[in-house]
Amino acid sequence: MPRKTPLSAYVDLQDAFATDVKSVANQQSLGEIFTASCRFLSKLETVELRSLVSSKEYFAFTDGTRVSRAVNKRLFLDEPTQWEVFCRALAAKKVPDLDAETITRVIYSVAVGFFCYIDLTKDGDQKTPGTFFEYLIGHLMARRLDVNPKVRLPVLNLDLEATLPTDFVFDLGPNQAKFHVPVKTSTRERVIQVWAHQRVLDGVYGTGRFLGTPVILGETKTDRKKREVIEICLPDQWRIYQMHIAQLKRIYYLDIPVTYEKLNEVFPPLSVKPFGQFFLEADILPT
Amino acid sequence: MPRKTPLSAYVDLQDAFATDVKSVANQQSLGEIFTASCRFLSKLETVELRSLVSSKEYFAFTDGTRVSRAVNKRLFLDEPTQWEVFCRALAAKKVPDLDAETITRVIYSVAVGFFCYIDLTKDGDQKTPGTFFEYLIGHLMARRLDVNPKVRLPVLNLDLEATLPTDFVFDLGPNQAKFHVPVKTSTRERVIQVWAHQRVLDGVYGTGRFLGTPVILGETKTDRKKREVIEICLPDQWRIYQMHIAQLKRIYYLDIPVTYEKLNEVFPPLSVKPFGQFFLEADILPT
Repeated sequence: MPRKTPLSAYVDLQDAFATDVKSVANQQSLGEIFTASCRFLSKLETVELRSLVSSKEYFAFTDGTRVSRAVNKRLFLDEPTQWEVFCRALAAKKVPDLDAETITRVIYSVAVGFFCYIDLTKDGDQKTPGTFFEYLIGHLMARRLDVNPKVRLPVLNLDLEATLPTDFVFDLGPNQAKFHVPVKTSTRERVIQVWAHQRVLDGVYGTGRFLGTPVILGETKTDRKKREVIEICLPDQWRIYQMHIAQLKRIYYLDIPVTYEKLNEVFPPLSVKPFGQFFLEADILPT
Repeated sequence: MPRKTPLSAYVDLQDAFATDVKSVANQQSLGEIFTASCRFLSKLETVELRSLVSSKEYFAFTDGTRVSRAVNKRLFLDEPTQWEVFCRALAAKKVPDLDAETITRVIYSVAVGFFCYIDLTKDGDQKTPGTFFEYLIGHLMARRLDVNPKVRLPVLNLDLEATLPTDFVFDLGPNQAKFHVPVKTSTRERVIQVWAHQRVLDGVYGTGRFLGTPVILGETKTDRKKREVIEICLPDQWRIYQMHIAQLKRIYYLDIPVTYEKLNEVFPPLSVKPFGQFFLEADILPT
């Protein structure tokens, strides 16, 4: 059987994804994509990027002509077997055996490995990485919470009958927590949508019923000519949104921006955490 | 002196715009852009489009190769002199001599005339039409309200000192109304941002101090292969945003979508009006 390319493995995932988001089949497709991406990237050169973000180093993959997006050197693992280790721990409900840092690195590597493959094989394709990232995060949260997500919620509000399109919602059942999970590769000024959706859920269903826990890859921006990497952050605006629009429970990042991480330390804090942390704290988040 | 092209007149507007948004110089540049766009378009063929929107007819301009966006047949006037008539009425504060419909048609024609010129001379340029539309609406509202807009507001909130970037804000002075005016060529699912920004202004400055009056061109979408025009509307979501995020005072359109116009007739109503109406009712909006 010919080896799968990252794209052919992605097409398999796309076909099967919605049938059963948390399925072992989806987990295997994600592993195949990671393996095929690592195989593709291992043949390429890398170029160093000048990081203007303190305490972070970035590089990019290149085939001599095209240059990929920025890759965080500390987070990226070219080790497909790590996916299996993580999935076994997840299946055995032994995630606590892995630390948050290790989990974050594995998931970051699956996402960014495939993104770099797309950067180097397709021109200007923003949609495939965004959709893949939704599949990856949706599947992992569904496995951890042991429930498949919904993407529409009914609004029964006297005479107004409608459904509300949402990002992923994981409903743990009657009298249990519901998670509201927007998934984005980066946010910039569009982030206000995340708080606004949370506000609508609070208003329609009651404050506190949905725990808002968005998952974001990172906020880096690369100047490809200068080969410089920066992070674009709006921390004062985030604080205003958290005070005046709605309350998010956590904001998870794979490559957590330095500026946003500091929001944990001010009062009132905004809880911005590496995504690996979710797998350790999911059970106590509602408390 | 060689005649100005729409683009050279636009560059003049761009250079001068922010110095004095409501200036006569900006008004003249807008008139020159309209005149030059009409001159350009008058040499072109038009093609009929199949309108799937009841009671509206659309066509497009074509140079044989490229096809412009959809143009509303009833609204588009190929008459640059109408701009002068409108501006004279505006200057003499005699806008009531013109009806809302006529004003809407003039402003629609200035906007869409230039958009079609850009569609036919530049590939995939979304930015220039969007910026031009902001200039056009910003200038006209500034002239009508006789005050220039701000695009940043200070947030003085105990220990948090920051400025909030906003769309246009027109501040009529102490103890007077302030208008919050997002300007968009279309909204689709991004519209939630408009309500979210209004919520932030209500929260930071107090409910009722800013009148939210977004101005939108239209919500048409053209299938260029089938040559069909549809309107993309989310009326149930709008009602939920108005109930649960914040209250907008008016939503002004140049090409008002049929579905949204009907929101005036349900309870609680959402006040969706042709933009020409603003020039007649601006003085009584705060009451």
